[in-house]
Amino acid sequence: MSKKIAAFGEVMMRLQVPGYESLSQASTLNYTFSGTGVNVTSALARLGHHGYLITRLPENALGDAAFSYIQKLGISPEFIKCGGEQLGLYFLENGYGPRQSRVTYTNRQLSSFNTAPIDLYPFEEIAVTMDMVHFCGIALAMNDRVRENMKQLAEATKMAGGMVVFDCNYRPSLWGKEGYEKAKPHYERMLYLADMVMMNEKDARWILGMETEKESQEEQLLDLIPRVAKKYSISTIAGTHRSIYPNHSHSLRGYIFQQGSFQFSKMLTFSVLDRIGAGDAFTSGILHGIIQGFSLEKTVTFAATSSMLAHTVVGDTPTATEKEILRAMTMTATDVER
Amino acid sequence: MSKKIAAFGEVMMRLQVPGYESLSQASTLNYTFSGTGVNVTSALARLGHHGYLITRLPENALGDAAFSYIQKLGISPEFIKCGGEQLGLYFLENGYGPRQSRVTYTNRQLSSFNTAPIDLYPFEEIAVTMDMVHFCGIALAMNDRVRENMKQLAEATKMAGGMVVFDCNYRPSLWGKEGYEKAKPHYERMLYLADMVMMNEKDARWILGMETEKESQEEQLLDLIPRVAKKYSISTIAGTHRSIYPNHSHSLRGYIFQQGSFQFSKMLTFSVLDRIGAGDAFTSGILHGIIQGFSLEKTVTFAATSSMLAHTVVGDTPTATEKEILRAMTMTATDVER
Amino acid sequence: MSKKIAAFGEVMMRLQVPGYESLSQASTLNYTFSGTGVNVTSALARLGHHGYLITRLPENALGDAAFSYIQKLGISPEFIKCGGEQLGLYFLENGYGPRQSRVTYTNRQLSSFNTAPIDLYPFEEIAVTMDMVHFCGIALAMNDRVRENMKQLAEATKMAGGMVVFDCNYRPSLWGKEGYEKAKPHYERMLYLADMVMMNEKDARWILGMETEKESQEEQLLDLIPRVAKKYSISTIAGTHRSIYPNHSHSLRGYIFQQGSFQFSKMLTFSVLDRIGAGDAFTSGILHGIIQGFSLEKTVTFAATSSMLAHTVVGDTPTATEKEILRAMTMTATDVER
Amino acid sequence: MSKKIAAFGEVMMRLQVPGYESLSQASTLNYTFSGTGVNVTSALARLGHHGYLITRLPENALGDAAFSYIQKLGISPEFIKCGGEQLGLYFLENGYGPRQSRVTYTNRQLSSFNTAPIDLYPFEEIAVTMDMVHFCGIALAMNDRVRENMKQLAEATKMAGGMVVFDCNYRPSLWGKEGYEKAKPHYERMLYLADMVMMNEKDARWILGMETEKESQEEQLLDLIPRVAKKYSISTIAGTHRSIYPNHSHSLRGYIFQQGSFQFSKMLTFSVLDRIGAGDAFTSGILHGIIQGFSLEKTVTFAATSSMLAHTVVGDTPTATEKEILRAMTMTATDVER
Amino acid sequence: MSKKIAAFGEVMMRLQVPGYESLSQASTLNYTFSGTGVNVTSALARLGHHGYLITRLPENALGDAAFSYIQKLGISPEFIKCGGEQLGLYFLENGYGPRQSRVTYTNRQLSSFNTAPIDLYPFEEIAVTMDMVHFCGIALAMNDRVRENMKQLAEATKMAGGMVVFDCNYRPSLWGKEGYEKAKPHYERMLYLADMVMMNEKDARWILGMETEKESQEEQLLDLIPRVAKKYSISTIAGTHRSIYPNHSHSLRGYIFQQGSFQFSKMLTFSVLDRIGAGDAFTSGILHGIIQGFSLEKTVTFAATSSMLAHTVVGDTPTATEKEILRAMTMTATDVER
Amino acid sequence: MSKKIAAFGEVMMRLQVPGYESLSQASTLNYTFSGTGVNVTSALARLGHHGYLITRLPENALGDAAFSYIQKLGISPEFIKCGGEQLGLYFLENGYGPRQSRVTYTNRQLSSFNTAPIDLYPFEEIAVTMDMVHFCGIALAMNDRVRENMKQLAEATKMAGGMVVFDCNYRPSLWGKEGYEKAKPHYERMLYLADMVMMNEKDARWILGMETEKESQEEQLLDLIPRVAKKYSISTIAGTHRSIYPNHSHSLRGYIFQQGSFQFSKMLTFSVLDRIGAGDAFTSGILHGIIQGFSLEKTVTFAATSSMLAHTVVGDTPTATEKEILRAMTMTATDVER
Repeated sequence: MSKKIAAFGEVMMRLQVPGYESLSQASTLNYTFSGTGVNVTSALARLGHHGYLITRLPENALGDAAFSYIQKLGISPEFIKCGGEQLGLYFLENGYGPRQSRVTYTNRQLSSFNTAPIDLYPFEEIAVTMDMVHFCGIALAMNDRVRENMKQLAEATKMAGGMVVFDCNYRPSLWGKEGYEKAKPHYERMLYLADMVMMNEKDARWILGMETEKESQEEQLLDLIPRVAKKYSISTIAGTHRSIYPNHSHSLRGYIFQQGSFQFSKMLTFSVLDRIGAGDAFTSGILHGIIQGFSLEKTVTFAATSSMLAHTVVGDTPTATEKEILRAMTMTATDVER
Repeated sequence: MSKKIAAFGEVMMRLQVPGYESLSQASTLNYTFSGTGVNVTSALARLGHHGYLITRLPENALGDAAFSYIQKLGISPEFIKCGGEQLGLYFLENGYGPRQSRVTYTNRQLSSFNTAPIDLYPFEEIAVTMDMVHFCGIALAMNDRVRENMKQLAEATKMAGGMVVFDCNYRPSLWGKEGYEKAKPHYERMLYLADMVMMNEKDARWILGMETEKESQEEQLLDLIPRVAKKYSISTIAGTHRSIYPNHSHSLRGYIFQQGSFQFSKMLTFSVLDRIGAGDAFTSGILHGIIQGFSLEKTVTFAATSSMLAHTVVGDTPTATEKEILRAMTMTATDVER
Repeated sequence: MSKKIAAFGEVMMRLQVPGYESLSQASTLNYTFSGTGVNVTSALARLGHHGYLITRLPENALGDAAFSYIQKLGISPEFIKCGGEQLGLYFLENGYGPRQSRVTYTNRQLSSFNTAPIDLYPFEEIAVTMDMVHFCGIALAMNDRVRENMKQLAEATKMAGGMVVFDCNYRPSLWGKEGYEKAKPHYERMLYLADMVMMNEKDARWILGMETEKESQEEQLLDLIPRVAKKYSISTIAGTHRSIYPNHSHSLRGYIFQQGSFQFSKMLTFSVLDRIGAGDAFTSGILHGIIQGFSLEKTVTFAATSSMLAHTVVGDTPTATEKEILRAMTMTATDVER
Repeated sequence: MSKKIAAFGEVMMRLQVPGYESLSQASTLNYTFSGTGVNVTSALARLGHHGYLITRLPENALGDAAFSYIQKLGISPEFIKCGGEQLGLYFLENGYGPRQSRVTYTNRQLSSFNTAPIDLYPFEEIAVTMDMVHFCGIALAMNDRVRENMKQLAEATKMAGGMVVFDCNYRPSLWGKEGYEKAKPHYERMLYLADMVMMNEKDARWILGMETEKESQEEQLLDLIPRVAKKYSISTIAGTHRSIYPNHSHSLRGYIFQQGSFQFSKMLTFSVLDRIGAGDAFTSGILHGIIQGFSLEKTVTFAATSSMLAHTVVGDTPTATEKEILRAMTMTATDVER
Repeated sequence: MSKKIAAFGEVMMRLQVPGYESLSQASTLNYTFSGTGVNVTSALARLGHHGYLITRLPENALGDAAFSYIQKLGISPEFIKCGGEQLGLYFLENGYGPRQSRVTYTNRQLSSFNTAPIDLYPFEEIAVTMDMVHFCGIALAMNDRVRENMKQLAEATKMAGGMVVFDCNYRPSLWGKEGYEKAKPHYERMLYLADMVMMNEKDARWILGMETEKESQEEQLLDLIPRVAKKYSISTIAGTHRSIYPNHSHSLRGYIFQQGSFQFSKMLTFSVLDRIGAGDAFTSGILHGIIQGFSLEKTVTFAATSSMLAHTVVGDTPTATEKEILRAMTMTATDVER
Repeated sequence: MSKKIAAFGEVMMRLQVPGYESLSQASTLNYTFSGTGVNVTSALARLGHHGYLITRLPENALGDAAFSYIQKLGISPEFIKCGGEQLGLYFLENGYGPRQSRVTYTNRQLSSFNTAPIDLYPFEEIAVTMDMVHFCGIALAMNDRVRENMKQLAEATKMAGGMVVFDCNYRPSLWGKEGYEKAKPHYERMLYLADMVMMNEKDARWILGMETEKESQEEQLLDLIPRVAKKYSISTIAGTHRSIYPNHSHSLRGYIFQQGSFQFSKMLTFSVLDRIGAGDAFTSGILHGIIQGFSLEKTVTFAATSSMLAHTVVGDTPTATEKEILRAMTMTATDVER
């Protein structure tokens, strides 16, 4: 079954130093374009759905390049507007072992997306056409106009019977001091509108200020997520727990909460090539499982495996097909196929 | 002691996406030229022997480039014919951790090698000049002309007193449905002509249809290989068992069977950079050990170490010298030498 | 005014040695995907129209990469079928001054496009949806199935009131000996169906076997093209004359013939970076001019300028926007704009 | 004789698409750091002087990389301050023949330099240490704080007996509509403070609104420059006239006006590899000639040759030594030296 | 507290085959410039001190490039002389797993540094300006002139009250047969002059010929180092023990001996990207700790962590800031910071 | 007709900065291996002959890489000896227009070739096997051992009835002050032994000190070459005149003098990509013409065209086949062939 899913979100240019040099050492950069919305909708397009991006790009060489790149990913550009003058950029220097990766952002507040006027996007049309619309918490940090756009589109989607998906993603550096307090009302507004939410117990504690007497991460999750679901009337909540080891490997376990019950995936442990965008692969896996009517167990395993594969792929944007994810769900390490 | 060894086999162009991108993500390819015969004879040339390749290349830019590349490897081009119009190609996308490598072949049946006429190659001259001639099972999958050429050359070699070496290499994708049944008579013909064969118990079971009541891989080997040696009157059989672990490491153990007795190498475990061609490094190590009159134990250890080093080298073609292999046989991990 | 234009044609992978090395000297290749249909429809998409490609791609890594690339160009993949096993490839080595560029083709007859069955493509649906459908003479050289597909689609298009565009493009190497005689009936069939044809006097003389007593290229054109238009009832014929100079510069003059009268562009002289695909840029310029209702003079100048700019762009596929072409029509050499 | 020369100006990151691809076609960028002040002081450092840059860089990976790059050029970082959060960036896509180069700027107003507070830089200390201080008109377009900083430093320099050098460089895109009117008072303030000015008749006409009845460029220059010198009490004025031809070649002629008399260089014609920064090479040549006490004729020829060589060098920043410039002044085309 | 530290030493060009190819397989090289002195002083410059290099570079393109590179690292070029004709080069081929890295040196004896005349460098001026001067044992292997220069500078430094730092670094290939015997007197002369020495028990045993009845590496260290300190009157001795594991990871433990007591760092285990230059990072960490008055424990931990980070950085030259080292001292593996 | 031709000469590693950057600006190098002997014999191998190189290479990674490279060119390595420790290197920075290319040599006197002992090479065996042996004047500048080796091989060749070919190539930088006087006796010794010599009137004037009253280059040639031929009893003399224009184009005219008469080629004018090695392409063309019994006119035209094509090829080593040269002899500029 193939659905129409739109994402409302910013497109950024990712400029990455090749290999393990720093910006001071190197003299070339590789670039791609990404963003939570780009990642989620292109992943869903790879899984056989119709992905649409709702965004604004500048009318210049950067905007052109972003536009081509998004088309290449199989995302429909129908709701991409042109205007404004800036595209958000970030520079990525790869860490190695004990040396951390470093991200340097520039220029996000003035981007075409973040300066887009109210009434630019055809929200009514989008709402009636789409089966799902995806929103990301990062965008809430931007400004009132962006937040207003998010609210209008979410309301229109709900009104038209579509599913509102909200990813709680929180970036401390964007909210500044006392960020959680500033952020809470904006997050709550989206949670009240959302049918499905990506989050874990940390978001409940820090953003929503919820308290728990439990100590372990898992117990906190089991305590808090049902309370979140109830308070904001959210039918589905899903997310991951991650552990990071030296020597470039991570462990990941996904969960999904629906109709009062939790389902966890196995703990997956694997080598990591490119960690950015792996959360969006999890989201797209959950959405695909729900659309396909997979069991909760299959859904959360599919999503966790999708996320695992996204860690092995260059760039922010997941590239696995359904067939590849299903194969990896049963896979043990094997030789070259030829 | 330096010997003359020819290999009859196809040269293919390997086009590899650099790094870990897919063909859809990248825009450049690295290319080299290889093939079982190329790998075995160039490895033997590095070990101090005279390697010759018996093949046909197209008279165009691809054939020119392949010819230069083969010369660079130190293989004598004396028996390389020009003609036909195509060179076989394969594209290689590197996997990472749980994401598998992917090989895409094109265009092999129409290659200059696979369309070469009978009577093209001077088999009589080759047979009397060479000490050994190497054949690979992959070529049996091609067509009657190729198989006829293999048979004629193997017979001429045997007649002239040279050693016929046959590698059982089987590629399921080339034989299609009921492939083992189709392949068996062709493999048997080569086995009856061969003095030395590269294989393991899987080949005996699947290609030759032999049965065994043993369960473990090693027991099956100990049961089946002596029966193969007897049935087809083969003096030497050798091969490897491989285990593959997550995190890019493999284990490898070689065996050799001669005059009724088995000899195994230690199990070697190591990081893998490029797995393709490592089997050919094992073959060349066995041949070198036999030529040099190494003990069976030294021979199989030398071959397994040669194969291990080939996993650490870019490209299909082994590059280690005898000195490097002997040093690695005694090596523990060490610091930079300078 | 924005129209829907489809092209029926093969997609090929272009593998180009970077810089000026030969395949024997180099070890990397840059690759893109192209074809007459790709070039014409992506150029029209850049000019604001809806481009569709009617083709078949293999279901493997090469087909995936081609598919992504075509999407990147803004071409709608709606009529792209998956199936078959091969993609046509060509290798390009850049010449320099007196040393010619060299193209090496592989494997075209077995490509997914050239082995596509009759009844694969929804010709009726295409015919009623499209305003124009573009065909290229190169495809006529392939096989009966391709030719039959071309005929059916052209007939359906004509029946549905769409415009049939035919580019006479003739590749001697594909037709072999006595190629013109073999080709003539197939070309004539397309000419009778075509509303608009890209050709010049050489095509009339060699493919159609028409005779003229005129000697200069221009006089022959003036003599033969009206006779072609009349004989095959073609409303519009257009094409170019090219002169090539040492030191990497070419001259180009376009013409268009409609309703009994010729219009020529100025002779344009310019440095050439990448000559391949420049003819398709001319075609797309003519089509755009006709769609927009430009005067004949503006149309042919627009098309010639479009072609000139395509010579300055890396890759086969034109990238200029209408604004860039219009500016180049009035441009004199200028400093960096900043 | 070696002098101390400081420049007050912004450092920008230049991100250039390699070869002739567009941002949409490519996936890598080469980057360097430059700016008028960087170019002039590093050129003077190559000519044997002590160059200092007065600027502010952000404390992040971009600022670090810029800092390293400036040190590499031999510029003293003594007066470089750290602070703010942004570095100005520009993207450069190379044109080819009739296809123009394209520059896309981002994010300049918020750069560390353009947001630096008043009283950040130790102007008194700089003024008494430096022999010359260089200012660029581009910076005048930024904001009041930048302009105030420029005025304070120029006044302090004049007071301390140093030479104030002002380059009239005007970027229309930075001033917007009615830019000349807005710009004029700011330019005039700098002209009244300057001892030496880089400009030509166009600056006099458009920025200063001066009128002339002369028609040719040269006559206008001869008419207007003495009037500028007189009105603003400027001892030396210098500049260039440029002509641009197809096929990547330019012509350049320098002039200098001092004590009532003009001196022109020969017209130099040459192939152009990288045009950006060539004006700064002219400036540095004039300053070097004046410092060394060259004759006016030698000074202007030296400066024009310096500028010519800068057109043949990758990147914005001139790299020629005095020896190389002097040799090029007498050079005819020659063979490889070895 | 910021100090002035000079290093007397050779600059070499490092030419590294990218990736894991051999020189025979590849066709490109990456190059940087380094040397013990370069590494130590640039690391100290990154830590906030003033680093000076005392060396001689040839007046040609190689010397120019080395000079720019050293400036880029933030080292003051004040005491770099120009002259001579050669720069030492070394080629580096990366190993992989069981395949060792290979270094090929060329041409060192004739380098500008090793042929520099006595009296070239202003030792008196250096001695009175610097707080510390660093010497490396590798230079002792060169020739009498180099050794004489070292002795003069060390004596002048001692006389002027500066700290003489000597790294015992010994390269067997440079001393040839019976190297230790040849080397001993030269090392002893430097040890008598040194205030601080980098070494471990192996240097004591092999270079200085000291004997011990202890068997473990650690016991030998505890036995020998105090005897060295006493015999040569050295106030501080420091060094490392290293273990090397398969799969690209090393363990490192640093020690420092001062005023009769030892202090050891924890054993650090980490993935290794580029091992060369990591010893110099340890040295610079020790010097920084001493300058800052860190406790012995903090000093040796800081130095070992500095060395660990240098293993994760491309090139010979450490790049970590004090902040980065301090953070890594407390770090557990963490996610991307953004 | 296919002949055996050996060349006695040094192999050098060429390290070239890609594009137009300087060593100070760039961070990567491309490398190949070349030398007059390499170029001449590989060019003859491409023309269908058997080329042999007589040289010595070091037993290290550089020697290995050179050896592979020479094999790739199709040169027989039969007479290549291993030993010594150094390989000569040179760095090449490409000029652009008025900015000259720059070559920086290192380390040549100590190279394996230049330190090879007398009696290393099997001169008798070479002399009786080869049809021609080629010597280059550059090697005369090295040292007595090299010169002695040259003399012995030339004498043995003459004795055995082979043809001695001598290229007068003179490098001023290698002979130092009063170089011509030092060089003359060595050149004369080779001239007396040579059957065929590559030179022009400048060599006669400067190296041999001959005088002429003629003024133009051509008249001097017509006057001096016959006198050289007579004095030293040389049957064939050939060479070129070159003119260099701005904008990367050269003109070349070849001449040949035999049995008292001169033959000149047309003046060829063409764009230049890589000038180095083009003289060796001329030499190989002359040798091929003589072997094939071409007319003098065809021989000199063939050689000049061979040289022209070598200017359009990356690297020192000519790559054209006979077919390509013959086609270029009749070629006018043409379109892509496909």
